[in-house]
Amino acid sequence: MASDAAREETARGVLTPAVYDYFAGGAGDERTLRDNVAAWLRVPLRSRAGASCPEADTSVELLGSHLAAPILLAPVAAQRLLHPDGELASARAAAAAGTVFCLSTRATADLADVAAAGGSGPLWFQLYVRPERDGTERVLRRLGPAGYRAVVVTADLPMPGERDREFRHGPIPMPEGVGIVDHLGSLEPWFKPSVGGWRATLQWSDLGWIAEAAGLPVLVKGVMTAEDASLALSHGAAGVVVSNHGGRQLDGCLPTAVVLPEIVEAVAASVPVLVDGGIRTGADVLRALALGADAVLIGRPYAWGLAGGGQAGVEEVLTELVEELAEAMKAAGSASVGAVGSAVLA
Amino acid sequence: MASDAAREETARGVLTPAVYDYFAGGAGDERTLRDNVAAWLRVPLRSRAGASCPEADTSVELLGSHLAAPILLAPVAAQRLLHPDGELASARAAAAAGTVFCLSTRATADLADVAAAGGSGPLWFQLYVRPERDGTERVLRRLGPAGYRAVVVTADLPMPGERDREFRHGPIPMPEGVGIVDHLGSLEPWFKPSVGGWRATLQWSDLGWIAEAAGLPVLVKGVMTAEDASLALSHGAAGVVVSNHGGRQLDGCLPTAVVLPEIVEAVAASVPVLVDGGIRTGADVLRALALGADAVLIGRPYAWGLAGGGQAGVEEVLTELVEELAEAMKAAGSASVGAVGSAVLA
Amino acid sequence: MASDAAREETARGVLTPAVYDYFAGGAGDERTLRDNVAAWLRVPLRSRAGASCPEADTSVELLGSHLAAPILLAPVAAQRLLHPDGELASARAAAAAGTVFCLSTRATADLADVAAAGGSGPLWFQLYVRPERDGTERVLRRLGPAGYRAVVVTADLPMPGERDREFRHGPIPMPEGVGIVDHLGSLEPWFKPSVGGWRATLQWSDLGWIAEAAGLPVLVKGVMTAEDASLALSHGAAGVVVSNHGGRQLDGCLPTAVVLPEIVEAVAASVPVLVDGGIRTGADVLRALALGADAVLIGRPYAWGLAGGGQAGVEEVLTELVEELAEAMKAAGSASVGAVGSAVLA
Amino acid sequence: MASDAAREETARGVLTPAVYDYFAGGAGDERTLRDNVAAWLRVPLRSRAGASCPEADTSVELLGSHLAAPILLAPVAAQRLLHPDGELASARAAAAAGTVFCLSTRATADLADVAAAGGSGPLWFQLYVRPERDGTERVLRRLGPAGYRAVVVTADLPMPGERDREFRHGPIPMPEGVGIVDHLGSLEPWFKPSVGGWRATLQWSDLGWIAEAAGLPVLVKGVMTAEDASLALSHGAAGVVVSNHGGRQLDGCLPTAVVLPEIVEAVAASVPVLVDGGIRTGADVLRALALGADAVLIGRPYAWGLAGGGQAGVEEVLTELVEELAEAMKAAGSASVGAVGSAVLA
Repeated sequence: MASDAAREETARGVLTPAVYDYFAGGAGDERTLRDNVAAWLRVPLRSRAGASCPEADTSVELLGSHLAAPILLAPVAAQRLLHPDGELASARAAAAAGTVFCLSTRATADLADVAAAGGSGPLWFQLYVRPERDGTERVLRRLGPAGYRAVVVTADLPMPGERDREFRHGPIPMPEGVGIVDHLGSLEPWFKPSVGGWRATLQWSDLGWIAEAAGLPVLVKGVMTAEDASLALSHGAAGVVVSNHGGRQLDGCLPTAVVLPEIVEAVAASVPVLVDGGIRTGADVLRALALGADAVLIGRPYAWGLAGGGQAGVEEVLTELVEELAEAMKAAGSASVGAVGSAVLA
Repeated sequence: MASDAAREETARGVLTPAVYDYFAGGAGDERTLRDNVAAWLRVPLRSRAGASCPEADTSVELLGSHLAAPILLAPVAAQRLLHPDGELASARAAAAAGTVFCLSTRATADLADVAAAGGSGPLWFQLYVRPERDGTERVLRRLGPAGYRAVVVTADLPMPGERDREFRHGPIPMPEGVGIVDHLGSLEPWFKPSVGGWRATLQWSDLGWIAEAAGLPVLVKGVMTAEDASLALSHGAAGVVVSNHGGRQLDGCLPTAVVLPEIVEAVAASVPVLVDGGIRTGADVLRALALGADAVLIGRPYAWGLAGGGQAGVEEVLTELVEELAEAMKAAGSASVGAVGSAVLA
Repeated sequence: MASDAAREETARGVLTPAVYDYFAGGAGDERTLRDNVAAWLRVPLRSRAGASCPEADTSVELLGSHLAAPILLAPVAAQRLLHPDGELASARAAAAAGTVFCLSTRATADLADVAAAGGSGPLWFQLYVRPERDGTERVLRRLGPAGYRAVVVTADLPMPGERDREFRHGPIPMPEGVGIVDHLGSLEPWFKPSVGGWRATLQWSDLGWIAEAAGLPVLVKGVMTAEDASLALSHGAAGVVVSNHGGRQLDGCLPTAVVLPEIVEAVAASVPVLVDGGIRTGADVLRALALGADAVLIGRPYAWGLAGGGQAGVEEVLTELVEELAEAMKAAGSASVGAVGSAVLA
Repeated sequence: MASDAAREETARGVLTPAVYDYFAGGAGDERTLRDNVAAWLRVPLRSRAGASCPEADTSVELLGSHLAAPILLAPVAAQRLLHPDGELASARAAAAAGTVFCLSTRATADLADVAAAGGSGPLWFQLYVRPERDGTERVLRRLGPAGYRAVVVTADLPMPGERDREFRHGPIPMPEGVGIVDHLGSLEPWFKPSVGGWRATLQWSDLGWIAEAAGLPVLVKGVMTAEDASLALSHGAAGVVVSNHGGRQLDGCLPTAVVLPEIVEAVAASVPVLVDGGIRTGADVLRALALGADAVLIGRPYAWGLAGGGQAGVEEVLTELVEELAEAMKAAGSASVGAVGSAVLA
């Protein structure tokens, strides 16, 4: 996705500085933000002769869904700040591309409207656990009937990171009629990037009642150590997402590409391991798979596609990435995702 | 403290070039000055899920004082060059923040006036040993009655480093009525950064009579090797400060973050180990603690705060750093300073 | 060849952007393109005193040909886009310099015309295997009678890399009367850099009928792993060329200097090992020899020489490189190519 | 010597581009030129407390001469291109500073005139071995009577490096009455940087008759490997100079700081080991000593001093370096040159 930079430039041109900085920025000096990207590039690939692999199949099975490729749309908040169609456009694009759209708690569209838009595409729901458990349970109980297939609990947010680029703008006003939903019928007309009330209330023991209320598999997002992976598994997680919140929380923490192998080893194939952070090309996806991930999530790349082109922009991003992954798999001699192994790496 | 650079810029705008260069500059090509900062960033952190650590307590006990956080104000000379309130403002800010202010021998305020300003905050006194032992003893005997709790002997200054940025300006004239005190009643109206008479007179055997004259614990500042740490301990030091004088002495020597572990090992918890040099963020403080330091000292960051905002400016620096440290501790899964261990590091 | 950059600048001045970008560009973010060059520079040389080696002989025997130096002209497509004399000029320059010109399948001159121009110089032919085996066989049968001495089968092209710099220009129009030949009498007046029909049709088992049809030794170009080297040998390859297509295919794959030793070890001297990619100076050639290569191929450097000066420009490039190699061999204490060993490297 | 860059800037202002480029330039892309400097900076120093070393003595005995510091003036050709006083000024400055001036074969002053100017200071003579042995012997026989104490044979020059920056200017015209001497009474009015006739004629066996003709100890300059150090010793060398000709010969060869330990080990203290290349500060000298060198030579730094200030300019360079070395030794806890050991290094 060498055109990722071009898409970001286009998005920057159509967004207000406050909105652009919210989506582009990271914590502190943005070292982890940059290092997330750079760390994938430091994983060298061994390229095989074409004769060794003429075709490659990118499709996978993931938590009961058949996906065209192991590339999912990560939860991204407040997408109507990027484009009038917001989360509806992204859900449609994911469905068209045969992959998962993961809706954010802090969306600008109700979960049922997104499900209606996404049609038959697989949908997941990202959850910040609120202090008031009652409201959260009511949201969770809506998911299954609306067609969602998994809950992704964000566990890496004890408090918002020091995102200077973002915070200096203050709360971002919303367009007329747009707001942050609570998935229970009400709506907040300002977007306060700092997530206030949610901070630091998730306990490991919460995973149980979340799974029960939703009746869905629960993945834990924000796992960066073998210890937390083991804690998540022992509390019933159906999967883990290796993530440092896109470099938006603890600046200076390790990039996800570096910690991924430690977590893969701790999980030992008992549940799927996903990873996000800095994935920009099909070759990056191949690297993640070779390091043991079952799938990846992308965030900023599709946000720029959404800003610049709505649903079509997001589809273009996914199409390019899947094509690049297929090429990279062939160049690496892997005919299927299951065949991608550590022999791909130098 | 991503705003550290902004504060330095503000300070640069209100100071004369000669004064700015004195505080900002380092020895030689300023490689150690830069490397002090960079070396902390090379220590990667492992970030834990929020569920693993909802709260963090930054307070510590240090040499008999209870501090709100293990972040002290390092001795910085001639602070009335930075702000009319000089050392008084810094002492008040440290007291308000619940931490130590360490007064420089080469101050622009008498030690008793600083003690009066600092109220109940813990005060330390930094000492250059002068050739005339008699004067030094008279200063040391004033410390206890004035409320000081420790003496920090600077041991790393055989002669002034080649600070080109500083020395090209020559002696710096002082504002009317301001001068470098001798803590015995007289005052010098010019500030000569090169410390002339003090050079290379400290012997390890001096630690004994210094402690006796002051009746206070004596820490040795400027320890950069296990050998010197052992020598300091065997001569009765109550603590060591790992320091290369902020990169102002031997350019090309190792950064403090790199030598810290060797000294922690040599000291083996018999006395506190402090460290300074290049610490700019709460995550840097966390790194120092994880590498075995008991506390850190900051210098230039609060000098810029003082230049730009007097006491309030220094308080802002401390408040930000303590908040950042608390955040970093939670993100690293450490509920208390004592709980910070090497598991925090990758 | 410190003048390589100057030659590229000259070439850039005389070529259209589309043509310049086709020859200069690489895949993706062009990381492998850059790393190919940088990787040679990371191989440090040990320089010997002049007394240890007063003279150096650069000549070699390679697949039955005596060459003045182990520096060959790599297959480069569509050379009449660079200069009106195109492949004829390059073949003449190689003959004058006593080395091999390797003609590309996708040339702008028929193989017989090139052979006539190249006179007695050794000629090789590079082959993309087409789906229609019949046409390929007819081309191969022309090679021996025309004087070609080896076939170089490109094996690293399952599909064209994502060469943004190149592809954004679209197909490149050809000058009047110029076109891409098929070596069977017809000619295509547009140059479509993406090689469409040829993609991913080479099977390892094809090596057999290729060698039989041509009656010539077959080298496999695009070997980047020990596995593929072994596969090539077991299917009868008479040599391997370590190549990542000049960084034009899988961006992010290892540079050729890094994988060369692994392939040299796998081949174990049973056939010659050649290498291309990023070789810009005689010292780079020395490094390749010291890492175990029998010879190197250069691509872009002579393309720039051709663009700027036709045959004389290519000869200048070869003369400079051979002189530099002789100097580097003496500086490294190697009197002959056979004497270059790993003692040359640090 | 942070003022080294300033001196080079001054020199650049007073010299013609051709002359500046001759002295400043290196071979090829000037990688070794830059790396020579950078490699010293990568050797980290351990700084000791001032109490551990109040004073330092920089003096040394070297091949029978007592020197104020182990810092010698390297042979630099054609010094009247830099300043009208040329080699006479440099010899006087070295004598005043109590160190060795090593005169180049390709000087602009006869060796006797230099000896007269240099007074009682120790003088060495650098030799390129010419094909006509007779002339060389006559020069060598003049050395002892004129007061020279050693011969330094340059062994690293099989042929001139590809110094683009230098060669593009062609031969440099000399001021009226100035020329390159042959130390036998005649003089050449043009300076051709490429040394033509001398190339590649030194044999190891030449060391014997050189020593006999001169009746002086012979050092070999240009040793970069243990092998060549052993060859030099077995042919009677009284010392070796680790040198890559200041990055002017084989670009890409290792920097001298990197190969020094291998040669120190091979020589095993049987004769002195000197080193040049990229030494710019007293801390660099300390590093060289700690890595096992007995002394260092500086070239470009004093050339810039000579260009800007004649004898006084060269003296200033030496004074600064010796002061810096003394400071660095104290900071490293070394009271004498003999006491500098590997404990200084991290």
